[in-house]
Amino acid sequence: MKPKESRYNRGLATMRSILGPGIESGLKELAATSPDLARFLVEFPFADIYPRPGLDLKTREMLTVAALTVLGYPQAELKEHIQGALNVGCTRDEILEIILQMTVYAGFPAALEAVKTAGVVFGEKK
Amino acid sequence: MKPKESRYNRGLATMRSILGPGIESGLKELAATSPDLARFLVEFPFADIYPRPGLDLKTREMLTVAALTVLGYPQAELKEHIQGALNVGCTRDEILEIILQMTVYAGFPAALEAVKTAGVVFGEKK
Amino acid sequence: MKPKESRYNRGLATMRSILGPGIESGLKELAATSPDLARFLVEFPFADIYPRPGLDLKTREMLTVAALTVLGYPQAELKEHIQGALNVGCTRDEILEIILQMTVYAGFPAALEAVKTAGVVFGEKK
Amino acid sequence: MKPKESRYNRGLATMRSILGPGIESGLKELAATSPDLARFLVEFPFADIYPRPGLDLKTREMLTVAALTVLGYPQAELKEHIQGALNVGCTRDEILEIILQMTVYAGFPAALEAVKTAGVVFGEKK
Amino acid sequence: MKPKESRYNRGLATMRSILGPGIESGLKELAATSPDLARFLVEFPFADIYPRPGLDLKTREMLTVAALTVLGYPQAELKEHIQGALNVGCTRDEILEIILQMTVYAGFPAALEAVKTAGVVFGEKK
Amino acid sequence: MKPKESRYNRGLATMRSILGPGIESGLKELAATSPDLARFLVEFPFADIYPRPGLDLKTREMLTVAALTVLGYPQAELKEHIQGALNVGCTRDEILEIILQMTVYAGFPAALEAVKTAGVVFGEKK
Repeated sequence: MKPKESRYNRGLATMRSILGPGIESGLKELAATSPDLARFLVEFPFADIYPRPGLDLKTREMLTVAALTVLGYPQAELKEHIQGALNVGCTRDEILEIILQMTVYAGFPAALEAVKTAGVVFGEKK
Repeated sequence: MKPKESRYNRGLATMRSILGPGIESGLKELAATSPDLARFLVEFPFADIYPRPGLDLKTREMLTVAALTVLGYPQAELKEHIQGALNVGCTRDEILEIILQMTVYAGFPAALEAVKTAGVVFGEKK
Repeated sequence: MKPKESRYNRGLATMRSILGPGIESGLKELAATSPDLARFLVEFPFADIYPRPGLDLKTREMLTVAALTVLGYPQAELKEHIQGALNVGCTRDEILEIILQMTVYAGFPAALEAVKTAGVVFGEKK
Repeated sequence: MKPKESRYNRGLATMRSILGPGIESGLKELAATSPDLARFLVEFPFADIYPRPGLDLKTREMLTVAALTVLGYPQAELKEHIQGALNVGCTRDEILEIILQMTVYAGFPAALEAVKTAGVVFGEKK
Repeated sequence: MKPKESRYNRGLATMRSILGPGIESGLKELAATSPDLARFLVEFPFADIYPRPGLDLKTREMLTVAALTVLGYPQAELKEHIQGALNVGCTRDEILEIILQMTVYAGFPAALEAVKTAGVVFGEKK
Repeated sequence: MKPKESRYNRGLATMRSILGPGIESGLKELAATSPDLARFLVEFPFADIYPRPGLDLKTREMLTVAALTVLGYPQAELKEHIQGALNVGCTRDEILEIILQMTVYAGFPAALEAVKTAGVVFGEKK
């Protein structure tokens, strides 16, 4: 097996296990515009970083929800990762608690935007 | 009267007087996902901070319009606070002047996004 | 000719040559809410900065695509400038390469948002 | 006992247990300029948010290290919270792993600044 | 008088009246590296924007203190403008109240950094 | 030769050619705290991204100077890359022109901080 393929496959498996099998259609859409960004997304975050043993996937997803809440603009990525956090064992209450804590570090607008996105993921809004 | 209720009620009254009575449906929607964030939003910004005597409500809303313009991503909150600024005595010209000044501190994209939102509030766009 | 008009006209010509003749309807829409911001947008970035001889327009548009990708929230402005970059001689591959490089400086969410916008401009999405 | 004092005292106890007893001299210095910000810092983040049962203190400090790494500019606060994370049970390796993961969401400059600060806390630099 | 000189002179007079006569040595230092940025700083913010009649200088400086607090990284500019705000009639209490309000929109780290800078300006720290 | 070593070596060679041979002591210092971040810094930006044929190194460094100016807080990284830009063929005037253009997208504080850093690199300040 060529090492590059193995890196890609490891990343894809990690993405699927966190973000769900639906991620492949998202990747295909991304690759239609930028095949290189699609490949690096699989290989750097999801093959190189997430599978490292230093933190479990649930903790990693909690950190990612915090990071995306602070950034504020990437609600599409936050939506994926709130679903991802649920997939790897976070409860809804934990996700809301993370967002609530971010009021301290990034203010209320960041938390308000993130809770709207969480509400969409939780199916409380149509 | 329990002190906690009094804090919540003071906050709710401040929110209504700034953002208008429509804010209660917004709060209800927020509370459907995160009742705790809804409560802290009422209690921290609007009971603890806004009613403090150090600055009048018009000045506070002007500062908030500046802050949200600089952040750039929270256009939903900016929309509420442009309406809020009008409610507590700002003129449209003052709001546009604040946004214009923010070109100096956050660049033209921040101001362009904020003016679009102001245009929606002013009813110039449908 | 009054010097102020000449500055405005020089800016408008630069805007048209970069962003295309459609920019005038955008300016009219902006001026309907804030005539002053519309005028400063023409005069400061596009009369004072872009026509300076120190960098050619293609390089300037590449820098702008990088800057807007990093900021993340101004996807409407990024859309205009991805089209602008194409208009002044950038290739699609160069634009995607700029966005890819920004993963290093602003992370993957910034690049993912920008590629979605690039995909819209490139006509790969409807 | 008056409820307000109890809120302040609960916050101060939480701050001490996370950030160490040295935090009181920091608070005194802050209160010399802004007694109100010092009080709100004790009462909102550390009495209202951190002691909530939804997340344990170790998880909260990990989220805070992530948030401050993403923001980039508040290295003084990050320094306090890297020490805080160690105080409540994080290992150095976990802190470095959090910072490493933030390359994905905020890019390498954010991680490089945070690792420098971690190095100072870990005593690897004088 | 040539119109360009008049624009520069009007800007310089506004800078002096807000930031104090010491600003000229700061401008000279800036011009030693980038004469063009020094000139545009005088001409765009301080000739084109600040002297506009829509907002008085005290209000403008309050908005600028809010904006720079939210941005977080430009503490050198915030220091100038806290002094500027004092020069045009803000009280220390008003400045601290602005910074306190920014906890709501940009979180506590933004306010903590700004209060440290305010403390330096107020002469409470050496 | 193992592929991983080859990736690291390619990255290190690119770093040296852009940032100068002094970069190795910087990497050693970084690796003393986080060997993994040091390795990923070499391998992802400098082996995977920078050597790609889509943009030449001079253009890449110009984009990086723009990105770091916009971010504002990473002046240490900006200092390295201003030197890097000079090393791969940018002139001082081009670097100052990039920073000047960023006033449009990130405001004057971003440009003022960056020019101070450029002044240090250019040896105009001690």
